[in-house]
Amino acid sequence: MIRHLLSGADLDADTATQILDTAAEMATVAGREVKKLPALRGRTVVNLFYEDSTRTRISFEAAAKRLSADVINFSAKGSSVTKGESLKDTALTLQAMGADAVVVRHPASGAPHRLANWVDGSVVNAGDGTHEHPTQALLDAYTMRARLGRLAGLHVAIVGDVLHSRVARSNVLLLSTLGAKVTLVGPPTLIPVDWAARAGAAPAVTDAGPAAGSHPGTDVCYDLDAVLPGVDVVMMLRVQRERMNDSYFPSAREYARRYGLDGPRMRRLPEHAIVMHPGPMNRGMEITPEVADSPRSTIVEQVANGVSVRMAVLYLLLGGNNR
Amino acid sequence: MIRHLLSGADLDADTATQILDTAAEMATVAGREVKKLPALRGRTVVNLFYEDSTRTRISFEAAAKRLSADVINFSAKGSSVTKGESLKDTALTLQAMGADAVVVRHPASGAPHRLANWVDGSVVNAGDGTHEHPTQALLDAYTMRARLGRLAGLHVAIVGDVLHSRVARSNVLLLSTLGAKVTLVGPPTLIPVDWAARAGAAPAVTDAGPAAGSHPGTDVCYDLDAVLPGVDVVMMLRVQRERMNDSYFPSAREYARRYGLDGPRMRRLPEHAIVMHPGPMNRGMEITPEVADSPRSTIVEQVANGVSVRMAVLYLLLGGNNR
Amino acid sequence: MIRHLLSGADLDADTATQILDTAAEMATVAGREVKKLPALRGRTVVNLFYEDSTRTRISFEAAAKRLSADVINFSAKGSSVTKGESLKDTALTLQAMGADAVVVRHPASGAPHRLANWVDGSVVNAGDGTHEHPTQALLDAYTMRARLGRLAGLHVAIVGDVLHSRVARSNVLLLSTLGAKVTLVGPPTLIPVDWAARAGAAPAVTDAGPAAGSHPGTDVCYDLDAVLPGVDVVMMLRVQRERMNDSYFPSAREYARRYGLDGPRMRRLPEHAIVMHPGPMNRGMEITPEVADSPRSTIVEQVANGVSVRMAVLYLLLGGNNR
Repeated sequence: MIRHLLSGADLDADTATQILDTAAEMATVAGREVKKLPALRGRTVVNLFYEDSTRTRISFEAAAKRLSADVINFSAKGSSVTKGESLKDTALTLQAMGADAVVVRHPASGAPHRLANWVDGSVVNAGDGTHEHPTQALLDAYTMRARLGRLAGLHVAIVGDVLHSRVARSNVLLLSTLGAKVTLVGPPTLIPVDWAARAGAAPAVTDAGPAAGSHPGTDVCYDLDAVLPGVDVVMMLRVQRERMNDSYFPSAREYARRYGLDGPRMRRLPEHAIVMHPGPMNRGMEITPEVADSPRSTIVEQVANGVSVRMAVLYLLLGGNNR
Repeated sequence: MIRHLLSGADLDADTATQILDTAAEMATVAGREVKKLPALRGRTVVNLFYEDSTRTRISFEAAAKRLSADVINFSAKGSSVTKGESLKDTALTLQAMGADAVVVRHPASGAPHRLANWVDGSVVNAGDGTHEHPTQALLDAYTMRARLGRLAGLHVAIVGDVLHSRVARSNVLLLSTLGAKVTLVGPPTLIPVDWAARAGAAPAVTDAGPAAGSHPGTDVCYDLDAVLPGVDVVMMLRVQRERMNDSYFPSAREYARRYGLDGPRMRRLPEHAIVMHPGPMNRGMEITPEVADSPRSTIVEQVANGVSVRMAVLYLLLGGNNR
Repeated sequence: MIRHLLSGADLDADTATQILDTAAEMATVAGREVKKLPALRGRTVVNLFYEDSTRTRISFEAAAKRLSADVINFSAKGSSVTKGESLKDTALTLQAMGADAVVVRHPASGAPHRLANWVDGSVVNAGDGTHEHPTQALLDAYTMRARLGRLAGLHVAIVGDVLHSRVARSNVLLLSTLGAKVTLVGPPTLIPVDWAARAGAAPAVTDAGPAAGSHPGTDVCYDLDAVLPGVDVVMMLRVQRERMNDSYFPSAREYARRYGLDGPRMRRLPEHAIVMHPGPMNRGMEITPEVADSPRSTIVEQVANGVSVRMAVLYLLLGGNNR
């Protein structure tokens, strides 16, 4: 088993599958009389959040507590302690206090990787800048497998502001590893150039072979309607409202018209296809209420699966069979 | 047993009495060597607070932990997660994460009722707008019964800004159910018109029989001094400082002079009568330090009883004998 | 055993040694399979913080949880509850809710002492204004004893803004009790006059015998370089950035030049001497990275020892052998 979970790229197919299988076992705990496992009793999990993310923090907190770990929440945002204190000193402090795992959310891409150099315990990346969010990718994969029975060979469309999406990046890495095909869909200004180049989709970019950072099985399309009839999964990304004033961002109305998922578009999907969203949703922007609340939507299941997947990750990193 | 606790009106006399009796049993736990009961081990209680209320949040947190539940605090105020996320989506998220109970404080009257439509777990209203605060009414009833030996036939004066008080509203509902008589006391502008109308106390309102929303055993009086000699309980409401600049609010000095409880007024009470306040107090405004710290004051007992009553509510909703 | 821990002066040599010995036992727990002790199961520890101090709060939280206590965090800063509520009413509220110990951080010197008058439980001072921080002094003493084998007879230099340092004050009191000699080092404007007077170091003050508040075994020196070759321990104080604009404070550059600890200065220390800092550090101001990260530095050990010492304090106050 790996020691840290920093990136979707940390996971080979065996390790990823082990996490998903363990998560499935964890999910059965929820049905029992006593929902708590003693596996991590006496272990301390620190939630080190440099950005607000109540939803992700609570998911990790619930996962850790269900395994009987102690949880300490460290909201570093606005903390006077961290003013002028380096990330390294904070890391050494948490380690000295006995943190067995540090779950870190940070606005700077790469911060969890640096943290992992300084601590003996495990580091779990709970979202770093526009970079990665690997447990989100794991819970998405878990949800696809649970709904559709497999991952290999699935065709997944990821739709929206791919450029700034850590969810998209981690999903591309993990889904490639697990044998799914990914099509990135969005306005040309919001698709990373290297991926667009590889797919030959961006007119302004020469297509001289696979670009650095490209992934096998990933292509790009700017036309959502063209993609929908052929996919098994459509994953809508959240629009970050703070980006909507940027010059490269289409107007809200234009965005919703071209890349929002509404009822008519949903009905172009194959009958078995599912609709995913990492939450929280902007209802009416990237997804309409009709779609969000339809039986195809897995949005609530994703949240539930998130707790199981995070239980599995913490269990395998901290208390697994190789310790 | 009921599934949610949203309003004082949810409780019939039997259910309310069951809660008070259970709370009395819970209170005995505090005297034991180990103060913790295993009753809710493995259950998760989420404190979902859209308004700051450290006092209420801590009381529920202490109650849940004493029953061995896991507690997750979700301070929604200022959370970027909830910006643009509907209450419904937050509710579905918490449920998906495995919340067995959601304790909700919300500035909008009725929010807990809406929440209860969306979740399978139990919802406890910890204060919604100017509407209700039923566990406060239960702990007040518990305190009266503990001090005076009964509830039926007691005469309770509730004094102050009744119009905006969720504490008053829940107390009126519960005390009526339990057979106590309530007199609402305050400036005419701060007493709800329907109750005033029923009691024939407001000159500007015709008294054409019981108004909608009136309660048997409830009347109105604008003269605190006239009421005091005949009551068993005087419950002082907290003045909300933010309302004191509103045009319908008397000046602070006028308010304290006419409706504040000071030593001379306290001595007009019958010898056995008690003085209650939900806290936190504005000492010198609605209550003087002499009164607050007198042996008649039950203010500190109310806080202690609050933990016992909330233990009883969580126990009966989540782990009680009917599950 | 004492009931509260408010000041370094509360501790006689026997009690302080008992705490350090107990902390050493607690530290062995960290090496075991299960790091949790059942000693305080069912007890409630409230962290009542009127100032942000994530580092100290987390240390107490980890200590209490490792002893199986329930922990409730009450961040009073910005809480609407405490607006207009007196410290006394907050204290009575926490006590009524069943707090067995209140760990209090407060900007006003003396606040923990007042709190201790109002509650039956134990009060632990986690830093009050510029006054005291006794658990910091205990963890510093623990660290010296662990590294150097003894406390009696050690020579400790405390360097920096002694005047405003609760860490310095508590250390002077405790180290005097335990038989160490302390030299206070810093700019004349940042050394308390009484201590300076006693040591005959301040030209403007007559040296007519020990001043009020002086401590046996404590002297003053304004020249760091003169002190270094003769000490066993040099404890660097954190510069409070908010004080650096005050007129009595040297310029940042001047301060670092005269009182900062850098490599060349560190090499003037005896070979066995250690460098301490309570954290968080201003790297480059009072201490350079070369020093902070050297093997002489005990900064990370201090953090780890902090958890053990706070476990010992909570254990002895709440669950110790005399209850």
